[in-house]
Amino acid sequence: MDEEVVGLLAGAPGPDEAAAAAVAERAASVLRPAGALARLDQLAVWLAGWQGSPRPAVRRPAAVVFAADHGVARQGVSAYPAEVTAAMLKALQEGAATACAMSREVGADLHVVDVGVGDPTGDLAREPALSHARFRACFEAGRRAVAALDADLLVLGEMGIGNSTAASAVTATLLGGAAGALTGRGTGVDAAGYARKLAAVEAARRRAGGATPLEVLRQAGGAELAAIAGAATEARLRPLPLVLDGFVVAAAVAPLAALHAGALANAVAGHRSAEPGHRALLQRLGMAPLLDLGMRLGEGSGALAAVPLLRLAAAAVTEVATFAEWGLERP
Amino acid sequence: MDEEVVGLLAGAPGPDEAAAAAVAERAASVLRPAGALARLDQLAVWLAGWQGSPRPAVRRPAAVVFAADHGVARQGVSAYPAEVTAAMLKALQEGAATACAMSREVGADLHVVDVGVGDPTGDLAREPALSHARFRACFEAGRRAVAALDADLLVLGEMGIGNSTAASAVTATLLGGAAGALTGRGTGVDAAGYARKLAAVEAARRRAGGATPLEVLRQAGGAELAAIAGAATEARLRPLPLVLDGFVVAAAVAPLAALHAGALANAVAGHRSAEPGHRALLQRLGMAPLLDLGMRLGEGSGALAAVPLLRLAAAAVTEVATFAEWGLERP
Repeated sequence: MDEEVVGLLAGAPGPDEAAAAAVAERAASVLRPAGALARLDQLAVWLAGWQGSPRPAVRRPAAVVFAADHGVARQGVSAYPAEVTAAMLKALQEGAATACAMSREVGADLHVVDVGVGDPTGDLAREPALSHARFRACFEAGRRAVAALDADLLVLGEMGIGNSTAASAVTATLLGGAAGALTGRGTGVDAAGYARKLAAVEAARRRAGGATPLEVLRQAGGAELAAIAGAATEARLRPLPLVLDGFVVAAAVAPLAALHAGALANAVAGHRSAEPGHRALLQRLGMAPLLDLGMRLGEGSGALAAVPLLRLAAAAVTEVATFAEWGLERP
Repeated sequence: MDEEVVGLLAGAPGPDEAAAAAVAERAASVLRPAGALARLDQLAVWLAGWQGSPRPAVRRPAAVVFAADHGVARQGVSAYPAEVTAAMLKALQEGAATACAMSREVGADLHVVDVGVGDPTGDLAREPALSHARFRACFEAGRRAVAALDADLLVLGEMGIGNSTAASAVTATLLGGAAGALTGRGTGVDAAGYARKLAAVEAARRRAGGATPLEVLRQAGGAELAAIAGAATEARLRPLPLVLDGFVVAAAVAPLAALHAGALANAVAGHRSAEPGHRALLQRLGMAPLLDLGMRLGEGSGALAAVPLLRLAAAAVTEVATFAEWGLERP
C-alpha cells in the first residue's frame, strides 16, 4: 500500500497561506510585544492555515479513539490482561473513561471506533500482526471515521492492551537503535513482563527490518495503529488540523512521515509521553510537544489536554485589539 | 515588614489533608493505570487540598493583574516608552488586551488593579524603588484585592513598563550569581538598552545586597511586585490555590519563600517564561512549570494558559469511574 498512500499524500492540499499570513500579521500587530506569545502565536498561524480561515477558532473539536486487541498481549507483555481492552472500550463508549471526562471538559465530540476488540491481531513477535487485507480494512476504517466528522480540529487516540509493545516494535524497526531505549513499561509491567516485551520488540524488528514504512506498520503494529495511520491520512487530505496524542499515535503516523515529507504538516504533538520511544519519535518527526507532564495513558488524553492551548492561541490573536486600533504606535 | 509577614505566614493554615488524601485515593482507583496521568493527578490532589474539597473543580477562577509605573523606565531599559503602561492599563480595563481574551476563554474573572500607573517608583538603580510607607500600602492593596474575591482559583499577573528590570534586580539580589544570566531582553530591548538594564540591575544589587527579603523587594522591586507579594500572602492565608505567572510574579513572591518555607505551598508555576531569570527562580522555588512555551508577555497570560490543565486534572479524577464501580479488579 505504500505507493498508493504516497500518491494520496502527494496530492494533499497545503495550508491556506493567505489565512496563515493574515493571522501572522495580526499576531504581530496586537497589543503586546512582538513574539511575546511565542509558540501560542505560531499555533494560531498553523491553525489558520489548516482551517483555511483568517479567524481561527476551535468550536467543533472531535476526538477519535481507536480500540483493538493484540495477539502479543497473550505473552504477558502488559500489566493488564487482554480482557481489559473490551472493558475499557465499554467505558469509553459509555462515558466513564478518562478520555470521556476530558472530552466533556474541552467540549470535544468523542468517537470510539472498535477495529478489533475481541479479534486480536497476530502475535507480532512471531508473525505479521495484520494480514494485508486487514491492514487495508483498518486503514480505510480510520479514513472513514475522519471523513464522517463535522469538526474543525481532530484529536487521535487509542486503547488496546499490548499496544505499547506494538508501538515500540514499529519505532525500533523504523528508527533503529537499541530496542531497550525505545521500550518502556507501558501501563506498568513488571520486570519479567518487560523482558518478554523487549524480546517481542526485538523479534518483530528482526522480522520486519528493512521493510517499507507501511509494511513495518502492518507487521509490527496493530489494528488501531493502522486505523490511526488511515485517520491521519484522511485528516491531511481534507485538510483538518490534527493534534497527536502520545507514543502509540506517534508510532502509527511515523510511517506516513517516512513515506512523504509533508504527511504530518497539519499535525502538532499534543504532549510528550513518559514512554522513552516517544521522545525518539518526536525527535525524528521534528515535533516539539505542547505539554510535557509525564502522562502515559493514551486514549487521546495528552492531545485533549492540549486543545485548550489551541483555543487560547486563536483567541489571543482574534480577540485582542491591535496597536493601531488602540491608537498606539508600535516601537 | 519581614517579621510581620513571617508571623502571618507562620500562622497560615495548611491544606485539607483529608480532601487531598481522598482525591489521591480516587486517582489511584479510577479506570486507568496507576500514575498514568502523572502531573495531572498531582494537580488534582493539590487542588483538593487547597480548595478543601474532595471534589476539586475550577468553577470561579479569578485573575488579578497589578499595574504600575517604574522610575527606572526613564533610563530606557525597555523597548517601550513608559507611557505604554497607562495605555495597557486602559486596554486591560476595557477588555482589549491579551489577558482579557485569555480570561474570557478560560472563564476567569479579570480584575485589574492600578497600584501606581502615572506615579512611577524611585529609580531602583539610584534609590529604593518604594518608600517604606508605599511598600506597605501596595502590599496591603494586594491583600485587599484577593480578600475581596469570590474565587476557587487565583491567577496573579502584572503589567508595567520596566518591571522585568525590577524582577531581574530582585532576583539577582536574592539569588546572587551573574546579573547577566538573570537579565533578559524583556519586551525586546535593543543592545544599548540592555546594557543600561544590566547596569541598573547591578546598581540595585550593590545597594540592596544583604537586605532582608522584603527589603530587597522594596528597594529593587516595584509597586506591582509589592502588591503581588501581598496578594500571594493573602491567598496563602485564606487559603486559595494560586497559579503563578512568569518572571515578574515569581520575583515578587520569591521573597516570601525566602521568609518562610511554606509561603508558596498553595502555588504552582503556570509556565516557564523565556526570561532567563525565571528559570533560576523556579529552580530556587523548587517549582516545575506546567507549560514551557517560550512565552514572555506577563499580564498573567502564562498562568491563564495553565488554568484548563487544572480543570482537566480535576475532571480526570472526579468524572471518571473507578475500577470497582466498573466491576473490574485492579491488576
